[in-house]
Amino acid sequence: MNSVNSLNSHLRDLSDMADLAAIRQSVEDNLSAMLDDSTSAPRNLLNAMRHALLAPSKRIRPLMVYLVAKPAGSLVEAALRVGSAVEMVHTASLILDDLPCMDDAQMRRRKPTTHMAFGESTAILGAIAMLSRAFGILAELEGIGGDIRTRLAAILSEAVGWNGLVAGQELDINGQAELLEPAAVENLIWLKTGILFVAAAEMGAVLRGATEYQVAAVRRYATHFGLAFQTLDDILDGSTNPDDIGKDVKKDECKTTLVSLFGISKARQTCQHHLAIADAALLETGAMIEPLKVLAERLFAKARTA
Amino acid sequence: MNSVNSLNSHLRDLSDMADLAAIRQSVEDNLSAMLDDSTSAPRNLLNAMRHALLAPSKRIRPLMVYLVAKPAGSLVEAALRVGSAVEMVHTASLILDDLPCMDDAQMRRRKPTTHMAFGESTAILGAIAMLSRAFGILAELEGIGGDIRTRLAAILSEAVGWNGLVAGQELDINGQAELLEPAAVENLIWLKTGILFVAAAEMGAVLRGATEYQVAAVRRYATHFGLAFQTLDDILDGSTNPDDIGKDVKKDECKTTLVSLFGISKARQTCQHHLAIADAALLETGAMIEPLKVLAERLFAKARTA
Repeated sequence: MNSVNSLNSHLRDLSDMADLAAIRQSVEDNLSAMLDDSTSAPRNLLNAMRHALLAPSKRIRPLMVYLVAKPAGSLVEAALRVGSAVEMVHTASLILDDLPCMDDAQMRRRKPTTHMAFGESTAILGAIAMLSRAFGILAELEGIGGDIRTRLAAILSEAVGWNGLVAGQELDINGQAELLEPAAVENLIWLKTGILFVAAAEMGAVLRGATEYQVAAVRRYATHFGLAFQTLDDILDGSTNPDDIGKDVKKDECKTTLVSLFGISKARQTCQHHLAIADAALLETGAMIEPLKVLAERLFAKARTA
Repeated sequence: MNSVNSLNSHLRDLSDMADLAAIRQSVEDNLSAMLDDSTSAPRNLLNAMRHALLAPSKRIRPLMVYLVAKPAGSLVEAALRVGSAVEMVHTASLILDDLPCMDDAQMRRRKPTTHMAFGESTAILGAIAMLSRAFGILAELEGIGGDIRTRLAAILSEAVGWNGLVAGQELDINGQAELLEPAAVENLIWLKTGILFVAAAEMGAVLRGATEYQVAAVRRYATHFGLAFQTLDDILDGSTNPDDIGKDVKKDECKTTLVSLFGISKARQTCQHHLAIADAALLETGAMIEPLKVLAERLFAKARTA
């Protein structure tokens, strides 16, 4: 805890920061401190979690928590911690998606997948540990009331569980036969990706004490951002080489995606359509609008050229 | 939610109940209602979770939550829900322990293990869903203050994560080479089993609003109960046939246990030693002492004859 505190102490000066790189760096300092050598986890497990969690990443979900929370003063640290919790959940889901019994992926974030580097059992245990720790982080947030902490946990639990990420992965792995309609494919996209974006953004809004009207706008914003993001992922997966995105590509070629259903041009249109709705909703969120727009522009630049 | 509420409504009449079978039945009604057909989880995933969670079980951890919480009035339902959360975590850990990359077990609770019946991917996803739901249950407990709900979540997170169950499983699977000293073996026993007993009992105490003195006694009680319980498990694993305990036996014959280090007679002594300490601590817990004694007597009757 001490190293986390000392690492975060300088962050209080950054309460007005809207610089994406600086926020990303603060998130990574936070994640790194949580998994430092003072942690009493078995070394092999600790190294596996570091391998997965500290690999180069855009940290989109923590950025979203932060930029929607628009934190000042002591809330800066809480927003970074909530973002770290969401990133742990996201990383856990990637570890599991990559397993031999799931997508059987070899590369992720330009490195061997966690089970390739540390074995399957340690990879699975690392995922469980990070998922569990995420809820611990929320429970232990300093300076945040118990009712808000439990609301954050309820949002995260719902997003991960059998109505959320887990349901999406189950349908992706074992329910492909039923994915015949665009609505079913969009539902899968929603569960696999959108739901955690929405949870991240909503957690930011709850942390800020946003009005219910703003929370609804935040959900609308993140829903369409997430749909655009997954469509982009499908476009990139269908068109690029592994060096560009740092993970196995064409893993989804046996799967039904918007690209396989409608072709790349229509998928690109769909992506732009969702981005436009997200942009409109953003204006009513009370969030840090400009940096969120910059984030989207950088992420989706590839969608136009891929 | 409605079916959970209606199933639990009759439980308010049972606030003085100390009948183990009646509490166990209430826990099972609660678990069953959480996974009923109104759940929107994919059917295959739902069936896998039911398979694992609703298999015949002694429900020791939920009983411990309940009997330590000593609930009356509206706390009865909360105690059952907290117990259900702990049972979901315990069941998730069993699913994962049984995987091919871990203990590679075929039978559990007299049925095929979850991955044997539903495949590896669905088994893993079912475990993740139940772990995540457990934290959701704690976050959403009705009639319990936010600070208590977050304290419960913090206890559970710590017990599961990289200092708890996960660490135990990692050492059990990948750290056998270092298990040469009795202290290391006891530490492993503590992590694999004791820590969740302690968490269950402590959560019961927190729910009751026990004094810190009582919480300390509860932890001491559950620590030694857990050590006795794992020693019993090792004794049974080394000596019985699968029909007696409903799961694969001698899975641990390549592993270092107290039985392999000292033989069965010394292990039986160790078990009785821990039970005596647990019994003494129990008197200072403020818990429902008689039913907890009955529970221990029934569980450990086998230790004397195995």
